[in-house]
Amino acid sequence: MRAAVMRDFRLVTDSVPEPVPGPGEVLVKTLGCGICGSDLHALKYTKQFLESSPQRTMAFDMQRDVVMGHEFCAEILDHGPSCVKALKVGTRVCAMPILLRNGVPTSVGYSNEVPGGYAERMVLMEALLLPVPNGLPTERAALTEPMAVGLHAVEKANIGKDDISVVIGCGPIGLAVIAALRAKGVRPIIAADYSPLRRKLAETLGADVIVDPATQSPYTSFRELAALSASGDRMPVNPLSGTTELRPGVFFECVGMPGVIDQMMVGAERGCRFVIVGVCMVPDQIRPLLAVSKELSLQFVLAYTPEEFARTLHLIAEGVLDVAPLITGKVGVEGVADAFRDLANPEAHAKIIVEPWRSR
Amino acid sequence: MRAAVMRDFRLVTDSVPEPVPGPGEVLVKTLGCGICGSDLHALKYTKQFLESSPQRTMAFDMQRDVVMGHEFCAEILDHGPSCVKALKVGTRVCAMPILLRNGVPTSVGYSNEVPGGYAERMVLMEALLLPVPNGLPTERAALTEPMAVGLHAVEKANIGKDDISVVIGCGPIGLAVIAALRAKGVRPIIAADYSPLRRKLAETLGADVIVDPATQSPYTSFRELAALSASGDRMPVNPLSGTTELRPGVFFECVGMPGVIDQMMVGAERGCRFVIVGVCMVPDQIRPLLAVSKELSLQFVLAYTPEEFARTLHLIAEGVLDVAPLITGKVGVEGVADAFRDLANPEAHAKIIVEPWRSR
Repeated sequence: MRAAVMRDFRLVTDSVPEPVPGPGEVLVKTLGCGICGSDLHALKYTKQFLESSPQRTMAFDMQRDVVMGHEFCAEILDHGPSCVKALKVGTRVCAMPILLRNGVPTSVGYSNEVPGGYAERMVLMEALLLPVPNGLPTERAALTEPMAVGLHAVEKANIGKDDISVVIGCGPIGLAVIAALRAKGVRPIIAADYSPLRRKLAETLGADVIVDPATQSPYTSFRELAALSASGDRMPVNPLSGTTELRPGVFFECVGMPGVIDQMMVGAERGCRFVIVGVCMVPDQIRPLLAVSKELSLQFVLAYTPEEFARTLHLIAEGVLDVAPLITGKVGVEGVADAFRDLANPEAHAKIIVEPWRSR
Repeated sequence: MRAAVMRDFRLVTDSVPEPVPGPGEVLVKTLGCGICGSDLHALKYTKQFLESSPQRTMAFDMQRDVVMGHEFCAEILDHGPSCVKALKVGTRVCAMPILLRNGVPTSVGYSNEVPGGYAERMVLMEALLLPVPNGLPTERAALTEPMAVGLHAVEKANIGKDDISVVIGCGPIGLAVIAALRAKGVRPIIAADYSPLRRKLAETLGADVIVDPATQSPYTSFRELAALSASGDRMPVNPLSGTTELRPGVFFECVGMPGVIDQMMVGAERGCRFVIVGVCMVPDQIRPLLAVSKELSLQFVLAYTPEEFARTLHLIAEGVLDVAPLITGKVGVEGVADAFRDLANPEAHAKIIVEPWRSR
C-alpha cells in the first residue's frame, strides 16, 4: 500500500507492506488523518522524542521505516480473529492511537510495526473503536484526537468559576484549548498569537480578547480584566504585601518553545496557574525565585483519558466543539512532505488532513 | 543599641539607632531570633534577592545598613501612640515580620528603616502581635516563623489520604515540612539528605523512611512504598501505557539548589506533584518534555497566611509541632557572623538562635 514514510530523518512516499490484523484487531481504510505538531517534532527531534516516550511506548528504531499519523478517522474493512464484530464492515470509526499486543502497548503512528494514518490502511484494536455519529463529516471526526488534548488540558486545569483563562499560542493545540474552554462554558478567554491567521481562528473559536503580543502584552490584558472583575470580599489580602489580589488566572502554554515558561513567570500575577500543553523539545531555563515569589503553579499535561477521547468525539458531533475552522488543507500521501514544510508557516495553515485514498 | 549589621555585603557588630514605635506600633525587646537560610541568601545573592521581592516589600538599599532577623520571639517594652494596649508591657509575643506604615508594607529584617531580630530591640505592629502561650519556652516560640513555612507548604500541597510524601533536603525547612506532615497525620513520609545529622533530625521529627541519597535513591524508596501500598481498584490504568499506576507522590523540594528540580523530574513517577519550598537563587534548567511525558505538577510556595502563622504558634505550644530538636546553638549579636559561617556546614547545625540581650 502507499504511504508517507519517515526514513533516514526524511519523509518519502513509498509502498509499504499491508498490515495484517491480529486477534482482537480490525483492518481499516484510512479516510482522513490530521498532521500533528508532534509528528513535526518526531521528525526534527527524533532522539529527544524517543527518550521521553512515556513507558517507552513510542520506542521505534530510526534505522527502520516509520509511518506516522495518529489523528484519524477510518472505515472498517475486515475483522481479525477473535473479534466481537459489534461494528460492521463499512462503519466509520475513530480510536485512541494505541495497540496492545501481548499486553505490550504500541503507539499507532510511532512504531516500526504498526503503520499510522499516513498510509492507505491501518490495524486498530477493536475494543477501542468508537463509531462516528451519523452525519459527522470524516474530516471533523479525524480531529477528535487533537481536540481531546485540549479538552484534557482544560480538565487538568481544574478551572474555577472565577478563573480567567489566557491561551498563549494559538496553533492547533491552543485552538483546541480555546474550543474546550468554550465547550465548558468558561469565560473570559484571552488568546495571544503573533499570527493574524491564528488570531482570526482564535476569534472564530470563541476567544473573548485577542492579543497580538508584538503590540500588546497578554499579561496586561489579563491584569486589566482581572482588576475589573475582582471583588474585594472574594479575594484574600496578600499578607506579605497588604494588597488586594487580582482575580486568579490560568495560563495555557501552547507554544512549546524554550523561554516561554520563564516569560509567563515574568508576566503572570501572584498565584496564577500554568497548564503546560505545548511540548518544548529542548532543555529550558526558568527562574525558580521568580516562581516562588509569586507562588505560581505549573501543571504539565499529556494526551487524554479514554473517557475524554470518547466525550470529545461526541462534543464534536453535537457541534459543541467547533472544529471546522481548523481545517485549512488536504493532501494525499504524496503531499505529506510538502505539508510538513507548509505547517512551519503559521500564516498558511492550521490543520492539514492527509487523505491516503486520494489519487495524486 | 547593639546589633549584627549587614554592611558592604558583610556582617559586622555595631551600635545602631534605637527604633521608635510609630502609631499602632510597639517597642519590643528581642528575646530570641532564629537565623534563616533566606538571610544567608540575602547576604550572598543580594541582587537576585532584591529583584524577586514580592511587591518589592524587601526593597532595601545595600549602600545602607540592614539589620536582619525575622524569626523572633520578643517582649513588649512600650506602646507607641494610638495603641489599643490589649497586651501589657512584659508580655512575650510572636508576630509575622511585617510592618505597614502609611499603607506601605515593609519586611521586618529586610529593610533599612526597620531593624530585625539581630538587634536588642525592634518595633512591631500591635495588630499582628500574638501572645506566647504560657509556659512555651522563648526559643521554641521563635521557631514559629520557619515552622509556618513548612505548614503552609503542606497546606498548599493539598495532600490526599493516598499520597506518599517525599521530602528532598532536611535543612530547617525540610524538617519544618516533616513536622507539619506529622502534625497533619499524613504518612508515610520519606526523607532524604546527605547529612547524617539532618537525617537523624528527620527521624526525630517523625519521618518514616530515611534515605542517604549517596547510597540509596529516594525515588526507588518511593516506588517500593507506592507499589506496596497501591490497590488495583483505586488507581486508574494509564491509557497510554496500559500499566497500573502507582500510589501518588508529593515531593517537597527543600534544597533550593540548581538542578534539583530536574533531578526530581527524572526520578519521579507519572502524575507526581512537586511542592517547591526551597529557594534556588540562580536560573535553573528543566526539561519540559520530561515533565510533560509524566504529567508532573509543580507548586511553588512562599511564606504563610496570618491564620497559618497563628495556628503554627499554637501547634508548637501544644507540642503537636515538635521544634526543640531543631535548636542546635545560641549566640549573642557578636556571634552572628560566625554563626552564618557555621550554618554552611550541615553537620554542625540546624537552627541557631540569636539572643541579642546576651553579654558577650
